[in-house]
Amino acid sequence: MNVLWIFAHPESRSFGGSLRDEGVRALREQGAEVRESDLYAMKWNPVVDADDFGSAAGSDRLFVGPTSKTALLTGELSADIRAEHEKLAWADTVIVQFPLWWYGMPAILKGWFDRVFVKGFAYGVQRPDGRTARYGEGALAGKRAMVVLTTGTSQAAIGPRGINGEVSEILFPLQHGALWYTGMSVLPPLTICGADRASAEQYDVAAEALRERLRTLSTQDPIPFRHQNGGDYDDNLVLRDDLAPGRRGMGVHLDV
Amino acid sequence: MNVLWIFAHPESRSFGGSLRDEGVRALREQGAEVRESDLYAMKWNPVVDADDFGSAAGSDRLFVGPTSKTALLTGELSADIRAEHEKLAWADTVIVQFPLWWYGMPAILKGWFDRVFVKGFAYGVQRPDGRTARYGEGALAGKRAMVVLTTGTSQAAIGPRGINGEVSEILFPLQHGALWYTGMSVLPPLTICGADRASAEQYDVAAEALRERLRTLSTQDPIPFRHQNGGDYDDNLVLRDDLAPGRRGMGVHLDV
Repeated sequence: MNVLWIFAHPESRSFGGSLRDEGVRALREQGAEVRESDLYAMKWNPVVDADDFGSAAGSDRLFVGPTSKTALLTGELSADIRAEHEKLAWADTVIVQFPLWWYGMPAILKGWFDRVFVKGFAYGVQRPDGRTARYGEGALAGKRAMVVLTTGTSQAAIGPRGINGEVSEILFPLQHGALWYTGMSVLPPLTICGADRASAEQYDVAAEALRERLRTLSTQDPIPFRHQNGGDYDDNLVLRDDLAPGRRGMGVHLDV
Repeated sequence: MNVLWIFAHPESRSFGGSLRDEGVRALREQGAEVRESDLYAMKWNPVVDADDFGSAAGSDRLFVGPTSKTALLTGELSADIRAEHEKLAWADTVIVQFPLWWYGMPAILKGWFDRVFVKGFAYGVQRPDGRTARYGEGALAGKRAMVVLTTGTSQAAIGPRGINGEVSEILFPLQHGALWYTGMSVLPPLTICGADRASAEQYDVAAEALRERLRTLSTQDPIPFRHQNGGDYDDNLVLRDDLAPGRRGMGVHLDV
């Protein structure tokens, strides 16, 4: 198993940092190869701009999508982006670990997706039949991904009727809109609440939960997101009326 | 009316950039005062780290929340963060305009919230009765906010059963989890599809839609998010069983 562990926390001595260390060690003990993208340690630049695209950017109005595709094809993408592409090509499994900030990824991690997932690689890829390869197909098809999330909120408050919204829905843009979009099979997330206030005993429980999830990385069932091109959606990419009839919302995109 | 217009796009000559110009002009013609946070033009730093907090950070393990609160109270927050606080204090209305990237905000904008919304200001504020002031109460209560969104996707594909998820749910972390969280009344978003491929006629339609929304900024009904401390949630911040009975998901947090 080749695992890329992406980590976004400003403090390596944090609860999250310790979990990351624990996870990487556990994987290696299982015999996995592990490479890391520790975004704070790398001083990752999260801001998409013309400098990402070399001479492809030119001086006219910048269209991010097509310009990124040109730079991808001509090899002119910024070296830090190309390095992440190389890691992704190498990996069969991707862990995305972060603390939940304002119900989303820290900016440094959001900007990893913004910059690395360029057009022609992560989106805008045509299949031979003219449909777009995404949501279950694409550059990263065949790989597995798992989110490891730490948060200060309580389990109840991110539960099905918790005030913050349910964690599966908070993560929908990432898990469905980025990981599944590019073809990856997405395992259920590991969510650890109350991280900054945790006792040593609570840390041990979290670390064991993580080790257990890492032991079953290759066998656990992924979230059953629907495939775009599997017949469930019409030509406007709207779910067929006879599937999840009368319902709306993120849950309809699960084939359950 | 004092309007703060936050804008996050790498290209001022884009469809979004033209809309921003149009919106600022229209507001001024209405007699409003407008200030801007054009994050790319400002070269806004979106990455939270110890440098935000002056001597409050020290050299021990960094706890972002409490350290940010200390720095807020001692006046040691980074000057760029304090400048945004001053703009927010001045504004009665906040426009948040961005292109939808990977079903979320561009990193530079996510990092505006990560860095500006520090503890003691945007969260972790106690009411006299010991409950936390948030979701309808807080530092920004009394202000109005509106999202202006441009996206390459079609209206159908971000509709109620569209494959990308419904736009109101994609925006839930921002609109509910950040804007409403800090007390702002959130107006329905203005969503403009197909921005990068738009014709001049389509631009004119979008610009008129924007002007119409700006004319009614102070009178339009906000999204009816539930108040945390209004009696709808129990002590665990879970919605009472008798409200939206049997339902789950983001929609239950609307009082409709």
